[in-house]
Amino acid sequence: MKHLLDIGVLTPDDLHHLMALTDHMVEVNQRPIPKVPALRGKTVVNLFFENSTRTLTSFDTAARRLSADVMNFAVSSSSVNKGESLRDTIETISAMGVDAFVVRHKSSGAPMQVTKWTNASVVNAGDGWHQHPTQALLDCYTIRTHLNRRTGFDGLHIAIVGDIKHSRVARSNVQAFTALGAHVTLVAPPTLLPPAVETWPVTVSHDLDSLIAKVDVLYLLRMQRERMVDALVPSLREYTGAYGLTPLRAARLRPHALVMHPGPMNRGVEMAVDPSELPGSMVLHQVTNGVAVRMAVLFELLGSGADLATSA
Amino acid sequence: MKHLLDIGVLTPDDLHHLMALTDHMVEVNQRPIPKVPALRGKTVVNLFFENSTRTLTSFDTAARRLSADVMNFAVSSSSVNKGESLRDTIETISAMGVDAFVVRHKSSGAPMQVTKWTNASVVNAGDGWHQHPTQALLDCYTIRTHLNRRTGFDGLHIAIVGDIKHSRVARSNVQAFTALGAHVTLVAPPTLLPPAVETWPVTVSHDLDSLIAKVDVLYLLRMQRERMVDALVPSLREYTGAYGLTPLRAARLRPHALVMHPGPMNRGVEMAVDPSELPGSMVLHQVTNGVAVRMAVLFELLGSGADLATSA
Amino acid sequence: MKHLLDIGVLTPDDLHHLMALTDHMVEVNQRPIPKVPALRGKTVVNLFFENSTRTLTSFDTAARRLSADVMNFAVSSSSVNKGESLRDTIETISAMGVDAFVVRHKSSGAPMQVTKWTNASVVNAGDGWHQHPTQALLDCYTIRTHLNRRTGFDGLHIAIVGDIKHSRVARSNVQAFTALGAHVTLVAPPTLLPPAVETWPVTVSHDLDSLIAKVDVLYLLRMQRERMVDALVPSLREYTGAYGLTPLRAARLRPHALVMHPGPMNRGVEMAVDPSELPGSMVLHQVTNGVAVRMAVLFELLGSGADLATSA
Repeated sequence: MKHLLDIGVLTPDDLHHLMALTDHMVEVNQRPIPKVPALRGKTVVNLFFENSTRTLTSFDTAARRLSADVMNFAVSSSSVNKGESLRDTIETISAMGVDAFVVRHKSSGAPMQVTKWTNASVVNAGDGWHQHPTQALLDCYTIRTHLNRRTGFDGLHIAIVGDIKHSRVARSNVQAFTALGAHVTLVAPPTLLPPAVETWPVTVSHDLDSLIAKVDVLYLLRMQRERMVDALVPSLREYTGAYGLTPLRAARLRPHALVMHPGPMNRGVEMAVDPSELPGSMVLHQVTNGVAVRMAVLFELLGSGADLATSA
Repeated sequence: MKHLLDIGVLTPDDLHHLMALTDHMVEVNQRPIPKVPALRGKTVVNLFFENSTRTLTSFDTAARRLSADVMNFAVSSSSVNKGESLRDTIETISAMGVDAFVVRHKSSGAPMQVTKWTNASVVNAGDGWHQHPTQALLDCYTIRTHLNRRTGFDGLHIAIVGDIKHSRVARSNVQAFTALGAHVTLVAPPTLLPPAVETWPVTVSHDLDSLIAKVDVLYLLRMQRERMVDALVPSLREYTGAYGLTPLRAARLRPHALVMHPGPMNRGVEMAVDPSELPGSMVLHQVTNGVAVRMAVLFELLGSGADLATSA
Repeated sequence: MKHLLDIGVLTPDDLHHLMALTDHMVEVNQRPIPKVPALRGKTVVNLFFENSTRTLTSFDTAARRLSADVMNFAVSSSSVNKGESLRDTIETISAMGVDAFVVRHKSSGAPMQVTKWTNASVVNAGDGWHQHPTQALLDCYTIRTHLNRRTGFDGLHIAIVGDIKHSRVARSNVQAFTALGAHVTLVAPPTLLPPAVETWPVTVSHDLDSLIAKVDVLYLLRMQRERMVDALVPSLREYTGAYGLTPLRAARLRPHALVMHPGPMNRGVEMAVDPSELPGSMVLHQVTNGVAVRMAVLFELLGSGADLATSA
């Protein structure tokens, strides 16, 4: 594995391998000194053309725990301001000696393009509506751990609720969840479903209430306020009424059911309960697992037989 | 000690203990390689919702010298932009594995609230008009060292001059200076005194000239230009005339008297002399001691019997 | 050597010494773990009052590879916003314990002023139209390596093309190239030549086409769009027609000739060919050598007999 651009190209074996590696990283993170020297002397560049403290911090933390050197760039401080092309930016930073670029960009396919301009590994940290592969991995790892599904997701029913159309998280998660054997139902108003949804390996529903008592995982997507402006949803209040996790709906969840969200949450909109009062809320476990999964990905791409048992 | 939120809850013994620990840190900072491994593997997050290069850099330097990993967040780059609540920001970063949050916020009490949402230690790096406890510690340490007052401030007369009303530095320093035994006089126009000043353990004066030749420490506060807009002071020029340290006033200081300022200074306003020409100016000593004091605080909160004699 | 402010004060022996030291750093950068402990415990502060991801990243990478602690400040996040003077900023950061300031500033002479306010070493990373000494060093090193000129540039003909008038790169490079023995021709329209160019140790031309087939090095300067606004150039298109490196001109370069550019390039303006298709393009080699040269400079200023053979 040289790059991680698209969760869809990974086989179930690849997914299981990365999750087994994540188990090791979780163990590292529980040590008194949660660091290993696995990537000493390697340089990881986080190149974020979209603002995301959450994902940037997660990759930053992951790289440091592997003892890599990390450089963080947000678009506003980059030479892109001087009109430099993405290609020149990548080639320039690459020429300084970089082992991996972690790229977030508003354009679908930008991380793939980056691979043409550098010998470094490239990790897609979210590109347009296209892919967010490390989010899918951390979500799979969270389900695997908390529903004790080490061998696969056969028989699991996962509902993904909300703005599927504009969501790279939904696209990546549908691919990963179904690759591992889960049955996925997309729950959204017609305006928030993607054009060719009938070609996706999922069922579609517009009725959350008929499903909520049956699913093993309820995965809520962030409701972007911009969608109101585009008139894709009449109002946030009506959205919450039809698709939000309200106290009434939460009470109907199965006892073992997990509630997940990629963050940041809109409290009172899609998350109309306090997740800290839901026993099945995975929201903070997802964040914690995100660091371990990103450690596993960076180690898989850049590690060279280093021993994870040694402390940094 | 789990958090440092408010200087007022520390006993004189606590203050002396932290200052003794600061002595060790001063010694570390004088070594050829001024680093100790005391906090290896610990993560310190500087979360600054108010801009302050000075204080952020001081905490950053302190944490690095103890070999902690440091992450710095300024509000403008944080997910708060996406409407995420302070609570979700804290819980999310905390879930990635954080040992201490250093929080600066414009709202009084914000650092206290942060303690409810994380198991990490919290250090108040300035909240509204409320508290700035590490500033008070570094100021006490500077006086203790330069006036050779290792056992306390009994008999010392300290004047704090300027905008007491809006100053967290004044609030914290009054508590710390008086706890150590000093007599404090607040010198300000009535518009810049706090509402219930008569309940403070201080005397109040509107006449700097009658005091200047008697004090051991002259502590000048920063005069915010915003106060002019609020019409609390007629003009900067009149302020300087009545409350600024002018060459005439500086000439009347006692030979051993210290001149202190929390920075950044308004030269020509409250600091109407060049401090580099005042033998008693502590301005840069305060900055230097600030790093050592913050090392002591972080070590007190996060250290676990580590040996400061070892080099990193 | 305590500071590096101006390339013009270095003797040819100084230049050769720094380039020999750069050879060592190139070797360090080729190791599996490209780090040496030479500057452990030293703190390097990058203080950039002008935006430049490229130069900041290069110094940042250089300092980390020598195991220094690095702090990066961009002007927008600095206390300068609160009206603090440059002097107070320098004295304050310096009081926290700094070994070197790397300063970029829009005012010529600012780094020289900084030396008055700190005991730390100061490196000029570009000041106004005045100097950019590390750029000159990396350009000399690139020519020395790629034209195999270890003993000097006698007999080499170097053309510097473009906006000489506003270019600190041109000023520093003319001094360094001629000190090493090269013959330099400046090629520019009269509006983009400096006032007293007749006192410079160069020849001047307005005709790139008569020169292009004769030079050993073609050094293109960035054409700032602002110059159009100032009416110093009629249009970018006419500029490219007269002074840009077009495919026709590139075809007339001598087989061994180098094409250099300090970056960021304006593709389609001064660089009207794809440099990745020019065998003599040094653009990315300049970037790579920039890190090694800056390591050499920081080591020369701050190193104390440390052994470069040891790995960090």
